[in-house]
Amino acid sequence: MPGERRAGVYLISRCGSTGGCSISRAEELKGEKMKALRKVKSGKGANWEDIDMPQIGEDDLVVRVKATALCKSDVDVYEWTSLVAGANYPLPITMGHEFVGEIVEVGKHVKNFLMGDHITGETHIPCGYCHSCRMGNGHICSNNMGVLGRTVDGSFAEYIRIPEVSAIKIDKEVPISQGALMEPFGTAVHAVMKGEVSGKSVIVLGCGTIGLMAVELSRLLGATKVIAVSRTPAKLEDALHYGADVAINTREHDLVEVVMDETHDIGVGVAIETTGDQKIINQVMKILEVAGRCVFVGMIDYPLTFDGFMNKVVYKELILTGIFGRRLYETWETVASILQSGRIDLSHYVAAELPLVEFKKGIDMFSSLSGRVIFYP
Amino acid sequence: MPGERRAGVYLISRCGSTGGCSISRAEELKGEKMKALRKVKSGKGANWEDIDMPQIGEDDLVVRVKATALCKSDVDVYEWTSLVAGANYPLPITMGHEFVGEIVEVGKHVKNFLMGDHITGETHIPCGYCHSCRMGNGHICSNNMGVLGRTVDGSFAEYIRIPEVSAIKIDKEVPISQGALMEPFGTAVHAVMKGEVSGKSVIVLGCGTIGLMAVELSRLLGATKVIAVSRTPAKLEDALHYGADVAINTREHDLVEVVMDETHDIGVGVAIETTGDQKIINQVMKILEVAGRCVFVGMIDYPLTFDGFMNKVVYKELILTGIFGRRLYETWETVASILQSGRIDLSHYVAAELPLVEFKKGIDMFSSLSGRVIFYP
Amino acid sequence: MPGERRAGVYLISRCGSTGGCSISRAEELKGEKMKALRKVKSGKGANWEDIDMPQIGEDDLVVRVKATALCKSDVDVYEWTSLVAGANYPLPITMGHEFVGEIVEVGKHVKNFLMGDHITGETHIPCGYCHSCRMGNGHICSNNMGVLGRTVDGSFAEYIRIPEVSAIKIDKEVPISQGALMEPFGTAVHAVMKGEVSGKSVIVLGCGTIGLMAVELSRLLGATKVIAVSRTPAKLEDALHYGADVAINTREHDLVEVVMDETHDIGVGVAIETTGDQKIINQVMKILEVAGRCVFVGMIDYPLTFDGFMNKVVYKELILTGIFGRRLYETWETVASILQSGRIDLSHYVAAELPLVEFKKGIDMFSSLSGRVIFYP
Amino acid sequence: MPGERRAGVYLISRCGSTGGCSISRAEELKGEKMKALRKVKSGKGANWEDIDMPQIGEDDLVVRVKATALCKSDVDVYEWTSLVAGANYPLPITMGHEFVGEIVEVGKHVKNFLMGDHITGETHIPCGYCHSCRMGNGHICSNNMGVLGRTVDGSFAEYIRIPEVSAIKIDKEVPISQGALMEPFGTAVHAVMKGEVSGKSVIVLGCGTIGLMAVELSRLLGATKVIAVSRTPAKLEDALHYGADVAINTREHDLVEVVMDETHDIGVGVAIETTGDQKIINQVMKILEVAGRCVFVGMIDYPLTFDGFMNKVVYKELILTGIFGRRLYETWETVASILQSGRIDLSHYVAAELPLVEFKKGIDMFSSLSGRVIFYP
Repeated sequence: MPGERRAGVYLISRCGSTGGCSISRAEELKGEKMKALRKVKSGKGANWEDIDMPQIGEDDLVVRVKATALCKSDVDVYEWTSLVAGANYPLPITMGHEFVGEIVEVGKHVKNFLMGDHITGETHIPCGYCHSCRMGNGHICSNNMGVLGRTVDGSFAEYIRIPEVSAIKIDKEVPISQGALMEPFGTAVHAVMKGEVSGKSVIVLGCGTIGLMAVELSRLLGATKVIAVSRTPAKLEDALHYGADVAINTREHDLVEVVMDETHDIGVGVAIETTGDQKIINQVMKILEVAGRCVFVGMIDYPLTFDGFMNKVVYKELILTGIFGRRLYETWETVASILQSGRIDLSHYVAAELPLVEFKKGIDMFSSLSGRVIFYP
Repeated sequence: MPGERRAGVYLISRCGSTGGCSISRAEELKGEKMKALRKVKSGKGANWEDIDMPQIGEDDLVVRVKATALCKSDVDVYEWTSLVAGANYPLPITMGHEFVGEIVEVGKHVKNFLMGDHITGETHIPCGYCHSCRMGNGHICSNNMGVLGRTVDGSFAEYIRIPEVSAIKIDKEVPISQGALMEPFGTAVHAVMKGEVSGKSVIVLGCGTIGLMAVELSRLLGATKVIAVSRTPAKLEDALHYGADVAINTREHDLVEVVMDETHDIGVGVAIETTGDQKIINQVMKILEVAGRCVFVGMIDYPLTFDGFMNKVVYKELILTGIFGRRLYETWETVASILQSGRIDLSHYVAAELPLVEFKKGIDMFSSLSGRVIFYP
Repeated sequence: MPGERRAGVYLISRCGSTGGCSISRAEELKGEKMKALRKVKSGKGANWEDIDMPQIGEDDLVVRVKATALCKSDVDVYEWTSLVAGANYPLPITMGHEFVGEIVEVGKHVKNFLMGDHITGETHIPCGYCHSCRMGNGHICSNNMGVLGRTVDGSFAEYIRIPEVSAIKIDKEVPISQGALMEPFGTAVHAVMKGEVSGKSVIVLGCGTIGLMAVELSRLLGATKVIAVSRTPAKLEDALHYGADVAINTREHDLVEVVMDETHDIGVGVAIETTGDQKIINQVMKILEVAGRCVFVGMIDYPLTFDGFMNKVVYKELILTGIFGRRLYETWETVASILQSGRIDLSHYVAAELPLVEFKKGIDMFSSLSGRVIFYP
Repeated sequence: MPGERRAGVYLISRCGSTGGCSISRAEELKGEKMKALRKVKSGKGANWEDIDMPQIGEDDLVVRVKATALCKSDVDVYEWTSLVAGANYPLPITMGHEFVGEIVEVGKHVKNFLMGDHITGETHIPCGYCHSCRMGNGHICSNNMGVLGRTVDGSFAEYIRIPEVSAIKIDKEVPISQGALMEPFGTAVHAVMKGEVSGKSVIVLGCGTIGLMAVELSRLLGATKVIAVSRTPAKLEDALHYGADVAINTREHDLVEVVMDETHDIGVGVAIETTGDQKIINQVMKILEVAGRCVFVGMIDYPLTFDGFMNKVVYKELILTGIFGRRLYETWETVASILQSGRIDLSHYVAAELPLVEFKKGIDMFSSLSGRVIFYP
């Protein structure tokens, strides 16, 4: 009916105009121990340990982790693949970074959060003062940026300490399994927004969780045609359910041929590349139309080589770019408005749910799933 | 299924790489007369006349008009409202500009069309050489731009002459009633693309044909929330059917209050203004969020006054802009990709169908309809 | 010589990667009184008073004001013009906002400043948490934004308290008279950057301090032609010295005629409007080329009326926008890089220097000067 | 003086609003022979031959070449390097594409040129109808784009035939040696405009003619700091004369070290890459700041490999793009406005002048010169 509101399911809340919220302290947590999954040394594996509760700082929150999701980068840390092995990782450290939780302790200088608030976490912790931060690129802070689960203790634990700048308040009605997915969802939102897909045809390479989210988001954010690419039939079926117009299995079809046929030999306007695969990337340069745009998201741990860079990239005036995390905080505002629209249901990205102690089982099933494993500490 | 294509219903075709298409001539048309609706003098009214068939030029096509739609500007010409009365209109002239037809004669210098091709017409005829044209703004050519139905004879006739640069080839499978709607649809596409709606909340003021199309397109092109505004309950119902999340009847509700409530007091990101109403426009300045954008589409034939321009526009760093026609030819390419997507069905914008000779009846029903009157010559 | 650096004169410094700077406290200031120019009640005038020293907060700095400049808005507050009279101004308040000073006290939670640092002040104090702030528009914070000299005590005093987020560290080598000009210079930088002048012709309407700076900056930031407009011959001479290619005195020449002649009847690409004059604004709409851009900077305290908005703005697809303050902190980073380039010498904007106690004399001479009055408390 | 115009030296003219210009024909040229430098077969070398005068088509002009410049790509064709050897070059063909001349014959369908007009040539000949052309990218036409000196006979001859769409009218006052430089100058303009340099620091890699022009243009189009890089001291001296703030000789200094020092460890905002050198390109990825932009211009005839693409490109959200020719016709309009500004003097890019018959001498001196060799047929 005219005038009626269709209420959104999710809400990223604000304190409003009251200025400083009152702050509180949960004294009973002091001196306790908690369970955490810790990377203690290089090489494969991680330890399930009892460690001290996090010590709060003036600008921090301590949060009881209610759910935390397993990201490909966590698997890399566990397996100690080449993507992480050379990265000067400070050890030991608590793994994990995609989570939702409830605030149990509030630092005395915190301005916008209250005990009991539900939050999800922004993984990147900006300094706020370097040139990158001052230019609006705090998510790529150049001044020893903190990264949850990498340079500061993460969310594979019963509790996590997080600075106020990295806490994103969410409505308590958000189901906790879905709350743990908001951070990777934000990555997909950032990628698709960077793709400037409105009015364009879009190809999404790879149908992992980020890829599938990118398919669904491309459609929602304005693509006129969405092509999904994977080697796994079940993931391609999911992609079609989430809004892809065309699904291409590269085990069975020639990517370049199908895309050029689908696009009347024009090529696609935008590519969201999540595979990190050398061969795929060279194919993408062929199928992008003149002035097309490729957003790199997938991990690349080898010297990437472009064949025919002059003809395929320079002369076609392609735009190649990448993304890192989520823009602070434009992406989170867009995440809020998308979830409030009710047009995307994060629950279909919950592929499995396990107690955190069964982390090994989650890691084993990671690559075969279409969606995320959610751990409950 | 993976690999399968969902065929689009519409296709804007091309000659392909064959270079020049062969050209032909329908000699039997010479010397004939045809029926046309002519504006012959200032003041209300128009004449249904027998006039000479159009004389083709080297760069022209002659097209048999199969359907032609009635635009608000045609009604203004008929009624001789203040919007057209002062505009130095060359008379007499054949009215009309939204149409679809079949090519019956091809100028000898034409390169890309064949006898029998179906086309729709681009109303604006650029010179191709002035600074505006050279800067990619040929749709706002500064060098005595031709305008169908205004400065050159239009489509309310059995036949129309149109230069090759203004002919848009369409697939013969496009139903002719819908083919006549592609030009106004292009206007709506240009407006919404100019709004840069992807990831933003959008308000569309006015639910005439362009307004309703803008509602549907805002959703398709990436808006996270769409608010439709009108004073006509039936049009608001249509807006909700076409994808609006919220519909506001300004006869019953306070626009500013409802929008601020709907947007958690943030305001909307983008406004598509099609009413041309002084009061509405001042309200829009209030409800646009900081750095929001207003695309003006509606006719304004009075000195437009902004209350509080400093606080509401300058200090909020709003972006006010407008559109004229369709970008040549980016908008038409986007129209093609949208219609090929099959996500929009133009048939629901066909509100009535009449023989052209009953033009008076169509003009009388114009303002009460939700959608266009289609005339058949 | 190859490899040689041409050192910039100005430097906006950073603490670097040391994280928190040590903090200090100047105990001897407590309980003292200081001189300040206070607006105590509505109506013309202001009081030169002895008031308490500012009380520091945890996130604040206390700064000894070394120089402070007189802005048009300060004159409006003194004169109590219509621009400020209706704005619900909290009184009494210390006036002034353009300044440079030395830190004499550092709040215990401050992270990036040290006793003795020289700073200039950003007038707008963002909350950091509202939607505007989160979207990167903190300079237009929607949550009761603090404004120096308006909602919090300003710089026409011996000392000022300023929150860390509004302090901009500058090199001690910057002459203090010029340091006081960096805030208005930032306004001009924001305006010209928003104009996107690179490769375009630019007209600057009005040659007050911001206008003259905009002339010089348009040239430096990439305009291919700069036209300056004023009614004061001496200011036009300055504009020509600062890089204008053409200077138009609107007392003697017809603005529209000269501009169209200068631009081969194309019009200008960008207008920077600093006059706020109704007649000028309507002329600007005429002389902007198709798809041109107007950045509104000048104060407008009346209902602004556009003649022929349809033909001059909408159909030409002009972009009208405005600016408020300086982007936080992109503008300040650009200010730094411009001043470091050594291509602009702020000293020529110092028109007069007076002890602050002679504020009345400064106010009296304001409108006749080409440049700013600098006060020394 | 206020109101006075500083006349530009160059003018790109237009017919104005007269519509069609009258057309003429120089009959006396029929059946004559002319001298031309022809590539007749693969392998090094070219022939100085007598060939038939060009045959005009309806849409064409025949132009007497008054001066023509030697581009690196002409040298590649002569030497038959790997950059051209594999490109399916149609032979025989008249070489050359940078030129200025006088119209001696006008095709009967030509609308905007007259006998005796001076023109320079746009090398890329768009079809006007493919998707690329329709999207405003006619300079990268996807439909067998014609290229002067490559797919159609070029300018190393006494006369050249050129279609009207590729003719750029210039003022007769432009010295002919400089007229021949407008096409490569347009390439540099396109590159620097694509770099979006306004308010940014810029590094130009390579100081060939395009590189030096890019240095000068970066300064003019708004860079706040310009760093030039070469291995030739004389070219670096030129770069400093043309506006570079810093010149780096990579034979003597470490590029990364010097740039990071020059930029306070921030890096540069924009890179214009003209060397095509693998090592340089990997260094550029290191020295670009977060969200920086690299415009590729230099020829790359090998598989280009990026070391650490993830950390240096993706995570920094760099934007990599390239350019091809000049935008039709935005770049030419910008070229006109820059040259009219009088701020750039093309004469300093004339390094040598020779009769065309001494082409071999010009080719031999190409790489050692700072600027272009101009040939006179």
